[in-house]
Amino acid sequence: MVIKSRYWLMEFFTPTSIHLHGVNKIICKIKTKYQEVEVVETPDLGKILVIDGKIQSSLIDEFIYHEALVHPVMLAHENPRKVLVMGGGEGATLREVLKYKTVEKAVMVDIDEEVIKIAKKYLVEWHQGSFDDPRVELVISDGRKYLKETKEKFDVIILDLTDPTEGGASVYLYTKEFYELVRSALSSDGIMVTQATSVYFTTKVFATIYNTINSIFPVTRAYMTYVPAFFSAWGFIVGSLKYDPSSLTVDEVNKRISERIKGELKFYDGYSHTSMFLLPKNVRKSIAEVKEIATDKKPVVLPA
Amino acid sequence: MVIKSRYWLMEFFTPTSIHLHGVNKIICKIKTKYQEVEVVETPDLGKILVIDGKIQSSLIDEFIYHEALVHPVMLAHENPRKVLVMGGGEGATLREVLKYKTVEKAVMVDIDEEVIKIAKKYLVEWHQGSFDDPRVELVISDGRKYLKETKEKFDVIILDLTDPTEGGASVYLYTKEFYELVRSALSSDGIMVTQATSVYFTTKVFATIYNTINSIFPVTRAYMTYVPAFFSAWGFIVGSLKYDPSSLTVDEVNKRISERIKGELKFYDGYSHTSMFLLPKNVRKSIAEVKEIATDKKPVVLPA
Amino acid sequence: MVIKSRYWLMEFFTPTSIHLHGVNKIICKIKTKYQEVEVVETPDLGKILVIDGKIQSSLIDEFIYHEALVHPVMLAHENPRKVLVMGGGEGATLREVLKYKTVEKAVMVDIDEEVIKIAKKYLVEWHQGSFDDPRVELVISDGRKYLKETKEKFDVIILDLTDPTEGGASVYLYTKEFYELVRSALSSDGIMVTQATSVYFTTKVFATIYNTINSIFPVTRAYMTYVPAFFSAWGFIVGSLKYDPSSLTVDEVNKRISERIKGELKFYDGYSHTSMFLLPKNVRKSIAEVKEIATDKKPVVLPA
Amino acid sequence: MVIKSRYWLMEFFTPTSIHLHGVNKIICKIKTKYQEVEVVETPDLGKILVIDGKIQSSLIDEFIYHEALVHPVMLAHENPRKVLVMGGGEGATLREVLKYKTVEKAVMVDIDEEVIKIAKKYLVEWHQGSFDDPRVELVISDGRKYLKETKEKFDVIILDLTDPTEGGASVYLYTKEFYELVRSALSSDGIMVTQATSVYFTTKVFATIYNTINSIFPVTRAYMTYVPAFFSAWGFIVGSLKYDPSSLTVDEVNKRISERIKGELKFYDGYSHTSMFLLPKNVRKSIAEVKEIATDKKPVVLPA
Repeated sequence: MVIKSRYWLMEFFTPTSIHLHGVNKIICKIKTKYQEVEVVETPDLGKILVIDGKIQSSLIDEFIYHEALVHPVMLAHENPRKVLVMGGGEGATLREVLKYKTVEKAVMVDIDEEVIKIAKKYLVEWHQGSFDDPRVELVISDGRKYLKETKEKFDVIILDLTDPTEGGASVYLYTKEFYELVRSALSSDGIMVTQATSVYFTTKVFATIYNTINSIFPVTRAYMTYVPAFFSAWGFIVGSLKYDPSSLTVDEVNKRISERIKGELKFYDGYSHTSMFLLPKNVRKSIAEVKEIATDKKPVVLPA
Repeated sequence: MVIKSRYWLMEFFTPTSIHLHGVNKIICKIKTKYQEVEVVETPDLGKILVIDGKIQSSLIDEFIYHEALVHPVMLAHENPRKVLVMGGGEGATLREVLKYKTVEKAVMVDIDEEVIKIAKKYLVEWHQGSFDDPRVELVISDGRKYLKETKEKFDVIILDLTDPTEGGASVYLYTKEFYELVRSALSSDGIMVTQATSVYFTTKVFATIYNTINSIFPVTRAYMTYVPAFFSAWGFIVGSLKYDPSSLTVDEVNKRISERIKGELKFYDGYSHTSMFLLPKNVRKSIAEVKEIATDKKPVVLPA
Repeated sequence: MVIKSRYWLMEFFTPTSIHLHGVNKIICKIKTKYQEVEVVETPDLGKILVIDGKIQSSLIDEFIYHEALVHPVMLAHENPRKVLVMGGGEGATLREVLKYKTVEKAVMVDIDEEVIKIAKKYLVEWHQGSFDDPRVELVISDGRKYLKETKEKFDVIILDLTDPTEGGASVYLYTKEFYELVRSALSSDGIMVTQATSVYFTTKVFATIYNTINSIFPVTRAYMTYVPAFFSAWGFIVGSLKYDPSSLTVDEVNKRISERIKGELKFYDGYSHTSMFLLPKNVRKSIAEVKEIATDKKPVVLPA
Repeated sequence: MVIKSRYWLMEFFTPTSIHLHGVNKIICKIKTKYQEVEVVETPDLGKILVIDGKIQSSLIDEFIYHEALVHPVMLAHENPRKVLVMGGGEGATLREVLKYKTVEKAVMVDIDEEVIKIAKKYLVEWHQGSFDDPRVELVISDGRKYLKETKEKFDVIILDLTDPTEGGASVYLYTKEFYELVRSALSSDGIMVTQATSVYFTTKVFATIYNTINSIFPVTRAYMTYVPAFFSAWGFIVGSLKYDPSSLTVDEVNKRISERIKGELKFYDGYSHTSMFLLPKNVRKSIAEVKEIATDKKPVVLPA
């Protein structure tokens, strides 16, 4: 085989499974108070954002992850006006939220100001100016602290967090106690979604997040889609006080998209929506087999 | 990060994208007349079969690939009695075919007798004795030669081939001329399916296979599912003279499974079926954009 | 660059310096009571012995390491009749010792019987039958225990040990207390040598071994030679009660070789001898700068 | 093993032997008309210069390579006043040459102006301002063209070139025809030296360079020293019209250093000098076995 890169990013899936991504250029590499952050140019994925050694999103396919994260809950809700985004430093989750004509206010809470600065400077293709939208309020804060103190009620809360890696910044943003705070900050018909790690490589974490949210919310749904930059079927979990996104038909999804959204979507439509919620038999079985619930005392973690 | 293997298999996705799989043991490593074949024990995927450097299937998830390949066409057909499998040396495709009570004869054609020998010896978990089923006829032959000479008509033809890699054994098993031979060997309501490489890493190859089959068959359908061992959303293309598998409902799929299949499926059911045929918007667009058709003169190939 | 192996051994020089050796075949891979041992066939180095992830010696150049280890002390001594080899499971150190017509008895002490078994079976090119020489006495024992209990006095003691890796089998075979035991087992004009790790990659360990031996022996000498399979200038330390190998001239070395040795040497002669003891200015400085002495309480260790 | 870098430089020694160097930072990465050039910060070697994928020198040990290249011929000559350096873009070879009080003129010829610019900007620790020394004349030119056209006669010519890699810039700077040009540009007692690739990894190239120079010069000498950044015993070949550096004694070398050189050397002194010219028995044998001479028609090349 001919090899065509000299510089490589080594990404660990497990301690015995490593991916080498060719690197054209390390655009920026810094250590913030909370994490190690790099923006890197690759031949296959275009520009990528790497936090603590994990690819967060890539220019070539970030639309898949971000559309899959945002639209099922935004469309399931009847009239999302106030939205809270936690994490999502690239600004792309915000970008998708702001496509909704109904949205009046979008609060984004991120603990790491440095990541936002990097995004503003190097990830313009992601945020596309979203940070400057007048509906946006940016809060630099610990997510739990924000939820505890806020008086606001949100229609939709979107958790676009780094994985719960041992010693990392997000471990306590996947626990029962945290989801209780989330529920308290939702309006009475509110709905939340969190990214939920890799369905196959970290099945137990994925299923535990499902269980934990299921212990708090009357409606809980898991869905997944393949994200090329993650080499993985990626999981998402919805916790909802009223609406069930999995009950939307292909036609209803397409109708709501055309009514509510300004601008074009690239990945998401009625087919994608329906496909994502139809989990294969083995995945449904894996979820059913895991009984653990993540708590502050016993959080669910990935190895560092 | 802690690293927990000393021996590694280096698998190329592209010349700038490499995966390192930890290796416990190289169980067998031979060079046949046609290809380089290894059976390897890995910590994450269990036993794997590697041909010309590409993982063909892994113990831990071969059921996903093989069930996804076999069942949509087998269930779409009303009464599959005679089935032809081309390639599929592991014997797992055969295993799935033989689960159908309707099947009276299953012909398996593989060019490489050595691979069958290795499978019989080292891949028992795959074939589970299928080679000994009295309905099976094993033919060691070039696939094109077999199709040209056979007088048989098959209800279903399943092409479980290695990728069309430059210089490899399978390049001319993805061309228009080849699919014409396949169509000729089908009964009047026959249906065929082929594995069709990675949807995202080799999109053009995937779409070209679609186009090529579409130039021959009245009904052509693409579907995909994520296969962990391939780190990839894997593509499949159906060519059909009559039946359309994508029109089966969740309930109809489940009903046909319970009526026709002996034994348990692990991945495939009505949900999986429906999910696989609902391609995301961007994938449908990629297929629509590619116009090439693979011919013997100008086959579609992956870099060696 | 064209890449020509699919299987690789990953060897760490430091946590930020890794070598990938192509692997044709893993001939044997076992976990003994003391260590992980593999015999592997490589395209560049031929067969290699790997213990705890470090290449111990390779078919293609083991003669360099073993001749460099054995002959300086054997030739410096006037009449070596009784020799003790500690470690050296391959049997190649023994092989070199047995080339001396003066040698009447060679005791080999190794803690790990499994390694000897593997060597006898797979490393015939190394030992060349040395284990069967009537002058050889093989003792399976902890080296320190043997030295404490033996009544024998040896003219030459050769320490062919694995590196002092944290948690490994050899950490306490590089301390002051250990070298006191060695000195006690030497005859009044006895001389010892130990392998002393990589001069440049683990300079501090190399220099500490020098200092430690220097605290016990009246004559201490360091020497080094490049070993391709180690990608490294390899260090050796001599502790001597009387003789100084560094004072031998080129001619004297060659004369003694022709008088005392049966059979051919491939690496070692007067030139090699003289070259090895002439350490570059920077290496002499590195040795002079390190003041530590390794003790049982505070041994010198390499990271695991 | 714990791994402590996420970004890596992949350096090929052979198609089945690869080194991974941790990378802190890619300081600069450009493609010139002639080659691909990078300056990279590494944890183990400090800053390194990489040309066409090969490490040219590292901050931590460049003194070994550059002192070993320059001083043997400079000291062997009785009174080196005019010196020609070919290649050596880092400016470190020049730096060593300029330490000689006798030197009145040092011409440096390099084909690639971009490399010089990079060196001036990023490799200050290498050249230490040497390019500004009034004795220096910098010529951007093809080396063969320069030699053909120059009227100057040099006492010493130092060839600090990239390896003769297939398709690379230096293939025709290692041929008989080239060395004839070199000889013509030497004064009647002139002496030249060239770097001569890795003694063990590319033995045939090393020996062929020896043979080729030996076919032109009355005195030819090979020497070698270990360079940690190359993981290799590095070869050098001297071609001389009169002086024989290998005949200098330890004391004579040290005396000449103190008489002629301003400033300190770190690697080179009488011991290093003597050690380098005493080639081990097996290396002398390897040189003796190779009979090839490199010519313009049939140059000696390393695989790209």
